[in-house]
Parts: sequence; C-alpha cells; structure tokens
Amino acid sequence: MKESMRIGVYGLGRFGSFWAKTLADHGFEVIGYSRRNKVVPDGVKLGTEEEVLGCSALFYCVSISAFKDVLSQTASRIGEHTVVMDTCSVKLYPADLMRKLLPETVQTIATHPMFGPDSAKNGVSGLPLVICPVNCKPETLEWWVSEFSSWKLQVLRMSCDQHDREAAWSQGITHFVGRTLSELSLGDTQLATKGYRSLMTVVEQTCNDPMQLFYDLQRYNPYAKQMRMGLRGALDTVMEVLKKQEEL
Amino acid sequence: MKESMRIGVYGLGRFGSFWAKTLADHGFEVIGYSRRNKVVPDGVKLGTEEEVLGCSALFYCVSISAFKDVLSQTASRIGEHTVVMDTCSVKLYPADLMRKLLPETVQTIATHPMFGPDSAKNGVSGLPLVICPVNCKPETLEWWVSEFSSWKLQVLRMSCDQHDREAAWSQGITHFVGRTLSELSLGDTQLATKGYRSLMTVVEQTCNDPMQLFYDLQRYNPYAKQMRMGLRGALDTVMEVLKKQEEL
Repeated sequence: MKESMRIGVYGLGRFGSFWAKTLADHGFEVIGYSRRNKVVPDGVKLGTEEEVLGCSALFYCVSISAFKDVLSQTASRIGEHTVVMDTCSVKLYPADLMRKLLPETVQTIATHPMFGPDSAKNGVSGLPLVICPVNCKPETLEWWVSEFSSWKLQVLRMSCDQHDREAAWSQGITHFVGRTLSELSLGDTQLATKGYRSLMTVVEQTCNDPMQLFYDLQRYNPYAKQMRMGLRGALDTVMEVLKKQEEL
Repeated sequence: MKESMRIGVYGLGRFGSFWAKTLADHGFEVIGYSRRNKVVPDGVKLGTEEEVLGCSALFYCVSISAFKDVLSQTASRIGEHTVVMDTCSVKLYPADLMRKLLPETVQTIATHPMFGPDSAKNGVSGLPLVICPVNCKPETLEWWVSEFSSWKLQVLRMSCDQHDREAAWSQGITHFVGRTLSELSLGDTQLATKGYRSLMTVVEQTCNDPMQLFYDLQRYNPYAKQMRMGLRGALDTVMEVLKKQEEL
C-alpha cells in the first residue's frame, strides 16, 4: 500500500522541510508545496497546491496561527480520499478547526511530532509522536500508528485535551523558560557548572525554533496561561522564602 | 612534599565528605573533623578539632552561613604553618572573614571547587575550580594550583569579585531556576521533548544540594539580588510580549 501512496506536505518552513524529508526517507513519494519556499529537500518533489491537496495523505506543516486561514482557503479542494493531518504543537485548536472546516467525508487525524530538525538530527528513533483521531476510520488510524511505530517513534495515543494539558507543563514551560533566559543573553563562562550547561541547553533547544512557534504555543494552548501564572507564582514563592531567610 | 603533608577537612557534610575523599584519592593523608557526622569516607581518618586545625593545610567545608561562627571559634587554635582554605560557593564574603579573623601570619587562599558528589560522580577531570589568593606567599598559591591541575581540574585564577559576579549569573541563576521549577513539582511525562529533559536535569542538578546552600548562594553573593531582579524582569518582558501578541 505504501508504494502506491503519495504524501503531500503543505508548507516547507523549518519543520515542513524536515518532515517532508523524514517521510521521503521512510519510503514515501512526497510532494511538497510552499507559497514562499521553492527549495525542497532531497527526495521530495515540488508540486502545485492542487497536486498536494489531492495526495493520499496530506500533512499541514504551517504555523498554528496560519492554520485557520490556510485550511479555510484549501478545504474545498482537498481530495475526497485524502487523509488530512495537522502537525501543530497544540492539538485542541487545530482539531476543532478540522472538525468545523472540513466536510465529514474527509478523514482527519491530529498529530504532534514532538521533535524537529535539532532534536532529530541523529534520527527519530525513540522520539515521541502524539496522535489523536479526530474524524477517521479505525483502520486509517491503525495504519498510521503502525507506520510511525515502524520508524521506532514512541507513538502516543491520547485525547487532544490531554495533549494540551501535558504539553503546557512540559514543552510549553520549557519554551517559556528558554525565551526568558534568552532575554538575559547569558553567555559562556569559565565558571559553568554542569547545571548551568543544562540550563544553556534549554536555551539552545528552544530558541532555534521560530519565534512564531513560541507565540503560538503560548497563545493557542488553552492551558498555557495557567502554566505561566503557575511559574510566576513559583518564582514569587522562592523570592518570598529568600526574603524571610534574610530577615532571620 | 605531598607525602609529609596532612590535610585537615573541617566539616563532613555532603560536600566535606566528598572533598575529604577526593583529597585522599589523590594521595594525601586526610583527617576529618565534624561536630555532627562521625562517619568518614574510605581513606580518611577521623580526628579531633585540634588535630585538624594543626594540619599543613586546612579546608573549611562548612556552610557559608556557618563560616563566620566556625572561623571565629577556631581562629586562635589554627597552627602557625597551616595554610587555610575555604571552599564556599561565594568568595568575597569568606575571603573578607579570613582577612579579618585570622592573624596575618596565617596563609589563606579562597577556593571554590565548582562540583560536588553529583557532578563529579564520574571523576573530577575537566571540572572547574576557582582559586583566589587572599593572604599567601606566591609559592604556596603555585603549589596548590599545580596540585589541583595535576587532578586535571580546570583551575581558574580570578579575583573574588569576578568570581561572585560570574557565579551569580551562572551557578546562582541555575539554582534559582531549579528551585523555582521544583516548586511546581513537574513530573515525568510521556510528552517529554529533549528540551524538557534538559529542564528536568537542571532541577536534579540543583535540588539534590542542601537547601541551606541555595539560601546562602542567594544571600551571600552580593550580585545575586541583581540576578534575581534581572530574571524576574526578563520573565515580565516575555509576559508583556505575549500579551501584545494576543492583542494583535
């Protein structure tokens, strides 16, 4: 079946190019489309918007904040047998859009490959990919779960709500701390302890991603605000404890 | 010369025990003294307070906040040929105390081994040790620099002021972030990205240390308050940017 499938990747930004190449590396015929980027990675063909929308499976790799517009503008032209998947770093929001904007006949799955060109530079083996059925036949879901598992990904089935809740307190807080530390322009120092090196790794692993991803993670994850309030509260608590210590 | 030297370690807490063992592992005869802990690591002898204070070299391994009292109570009994070194994680404060409380005839060096039982569990090679002469003969300083270098430590000579300035923005901020995150009791999640794993490493690498070390690092480093204000300011900046984004 895999041999007869063409996979469309809509959007060839930093993540889309990486994702298209990863699919091609795993034996798929991959066609990429991008409004801006006309360069495709090795093994990926550049196609027209129509070609990509008519593929057996279609991955949207656009920023979360662009997804609504892109989906609205392309919905009516998606092939009737095309399985539509988003790859956004939040899940409730894009799943809701797919449910509302696509006809019921089009199968949809929400996915979140929790890695990118940096974290997967030595391969995707062992990395987590979240998959949430939105509107699809059980066999379609199973086929993709089995495909992703064959890449040795850690495939995690969960609800969009559970994803967003847990992601706010893992990926979301990591990016928030990374961007906060990045504001301070901390540099290399001879006095770097192992702990400090880990802290610098957090900055590197979050600030290479586009700023838009950071904004979108914080804005479109309904649990991100609670997380930020919690983090600020924890910081205030520690400040208070230190103040009391100084008064002793 | 090394063979004829006895090294005293005053204080056998988590760091003191580790430091005594590290000295013994490098060929010194080591005598440890502790008011509370009567268990010594392999290769270290338990001694009386008097014995430890009369050694060729004496390392104080007590908490920063206890150093003033301990030094005052022991100063008059330190041997006249004993080289006194502290191992505190801040340097201006203990160097100042050694200058004030010890007779000018006693040689003093401020040191900060920037590692401990966790970060050095696979050996000390490559780890940083800061050394600041306080009141000592150049040859005494050179002898210790050469000794520590022979352990393959990265020996860094600098002023106490430079140490505290840089440490506030490396070790200090790392511990502050670690303790703040620890307040949130973040747990293991299947959704752990590589960035999140690094963040959890920061918590592990800071929260195993005694709480007293955290308090003392923040209180006795004169640059720590600036650092904390800076961190809070950066957090507020990022919050503001997100707020503006949402208003777009």
